[in-house]
Amino acid sequence: MDKKRVAVVGYGNIGRYVVEALEAAPDFEIAGIVRRNASVVPAEISKYAVVGDIKELKDVDVAILATPTRKVEEYAEKILAMGINTVDSFDIHTEIAGLRKRLGAIAEKNGTVSIISAGWDPGSDSVVRTLLEAAAPKGITYTNFGPGMSMGHTVAVKSIEGVKAALSMTIPLGTGIHRRMVYIEVAEGYDFNTVAKNIKSDPYFVNDETHVMQVESVENLLDMGHGVQMIRKGVSGKTQNQLFEFNMKINNPALTAQILVGTARASFKQKPGCYTMPEVPVIDLLPGDRDEWISHLV
Amino acid sequence: MDKKRVAVVGYGNIGRYVVEALEAAPDFEIAGIVRRNASVVPAEISKYAVVGDIKELKDVDVAILATPTRKVEEYAEKILAMGINTVDSFDIHTEIAGLRKRLGAIAEKNGTVSIISAGWDPGSDSVVRTLLEAAAPKGITYTNFGPGMSMGHTVAVKSIEGVKAALSMTIPLGTGIHRRMVYIEVAEGYDFNTVAKNIKSDPYFVNDETHVMQVESVENLLDMGHGVQMIRKGVSGKTQNQLFEFNMKINNPALTAQILVGTARASFKQKPGCYTMPEVPVIDLLPGDRDEWISHLV
Repeated sequence: MDKKRVAVVGYGNIGRYVVEALEAAPDFEIAGIVRRNASVVPAEISKYAVVGDIKELKDVDVAILATPTRKVEEYAEKILAMGINTVDSFDIHTEIAGLRKRLGAIAEKNGTVSIISAGWDPGSDSVVRTLLEAAAPKGITYTNFGPGMSMGHTVAVKSIEGVKAALSMTIPLGTGIHRRMVYIEVAEGYDFNTVAKNIKSDPYFVNDETHVMQVESVENLLDMGHGVQMIRKGVSGKTQNQLFEFNMKINNPALTAQILVGTARASFKQKPGCYTMPEVPVIDLLPGDRDEWISHLV
Repeated sequence: MDKKRVAVVGYGNIGRYVVEALEAAPDFEIAGIVRRNASVVPAEISKYAVVGDIKELKDVDVAILATPTRKVEEYAEKILAMGINTVDSFDIHTEIAGLRKRLGAIAEKNGTVSIISAGWDPGSDSVVRTLLEAAAPKGITYTNFGPGMSMGHTVAVKSIEGVKAALSMTIPLGTGIHRRMVYIEVAEGYDFNTVAKNIKSDPYFVNDETHVMQVESVENLLDMGHGVQMIRKGVSGKTQNQLFEFNMKINNPALTAQILVGTARASFKQKPGCYTMPEVPVIDLLPGDRDEWISHLV
């Protein structure tokens, strides 16, 4: 099989799992890993080129951006202009449409392809939401997250004075309503009740049912499992009460990484431009022969 | 909104629901209904042209084939050659790949688009199966059907001597194994036990757990509700135990009809050729502005 050469940009949680997913894929070769501090090379990637700038890597076909979400646009702009496709898991839902427009212009100009927001939500969940909208055009879809760690909420808690370590868990209560369970270690000299009150009045938490608990060790509570339940009840044509449900219980960064690898593959089958996952045929996510997949999956 | 003109070919169960779904859609206009006996016009379609041949209808953009599965190819060949797109819910899984090749050649030659096997299984389920394969490339997907009426099995029972009326229900037992619950009215002069034995030894039933029951009225048992549960447990990258589940409880012909209408719409966004649903971007199934949908659904 013709192997495409990939650069993995960023080597945090997602980046590690992207390397594993690429090693398990039949059609990719790791061109190298790009990280800010290229002199730090963990043992499991010592066989790869680890560089500080993607320009130091040769013949890269696609870059998987495993950077913080806020860094995605900057990296994507630069890399698309180098004639290299990009994929990312940009996850600020309200900013996706704008990012798609801006990167689309750059990609078209450079004859490259960018697939954005390609994790599980946004990402594979977006594909299911779109399919359910088509299956029952009238109705409501509820997306219920968790139980699982919310990265954004955890970062918000950590930024509050007196918090030494934190974990914010998202607990689904149904109909898209969530409880926040916040576990913190309190820094010396701070009062737990005051810190808890400040967390609950933070904009990230003020609208949700939030419980703050003091623990000895946040580290001992960490688990990368996550989940989702999507529910749609709607109308097909003029027929009411069509019921749909999609559930996952998954290792969060492992699924994100696998979706990124699938969309990296799909990027070679799209015309120049920028796409979200519902705009990409799902069969393009798979390696190998399309006719074979049609026989097995359709 | 620019309205596309549709011909509905066939007016059985599916055709009726297709008309309803088209009436509920913002972007379609019914050019007419094609049926073998055009002189029989049920009240609910008296406002439409009802004809014996699609050639009698003007300016048709797309034909929705609501014919028996075995008639799909014949109609599609003829209509694609007239410069009209077609969609169908052809449901013989083992023959889909071949049909796609043959209709693909005709569609390409005539600059038309055909989307085949566009119901719920094959159809929307195929999209979910493909997505789950991409999300966890190693593992097993089980598709469990029912409880619901199996059209194919019901027809098979009806063809057995001594059966006056029949209904075969599919009951999911998990891991893709199904029980068949067969309800029959016995014709006069026939012995129930002999008829039941013949049903159980029919190729349609011989490999499944089958129960045959005699009833006073099959008509009183008929319900078009159906369901599916798809389960995948698999590996993302090198991470085991990724768990996925998709469930539906739906009116069977209403969902098939709605998917047909969505793919009829999508047919105008594909290059000439023949496609199965996993080859079509799911967003193309929706009417209206793509940017709007991306903001709401991604």
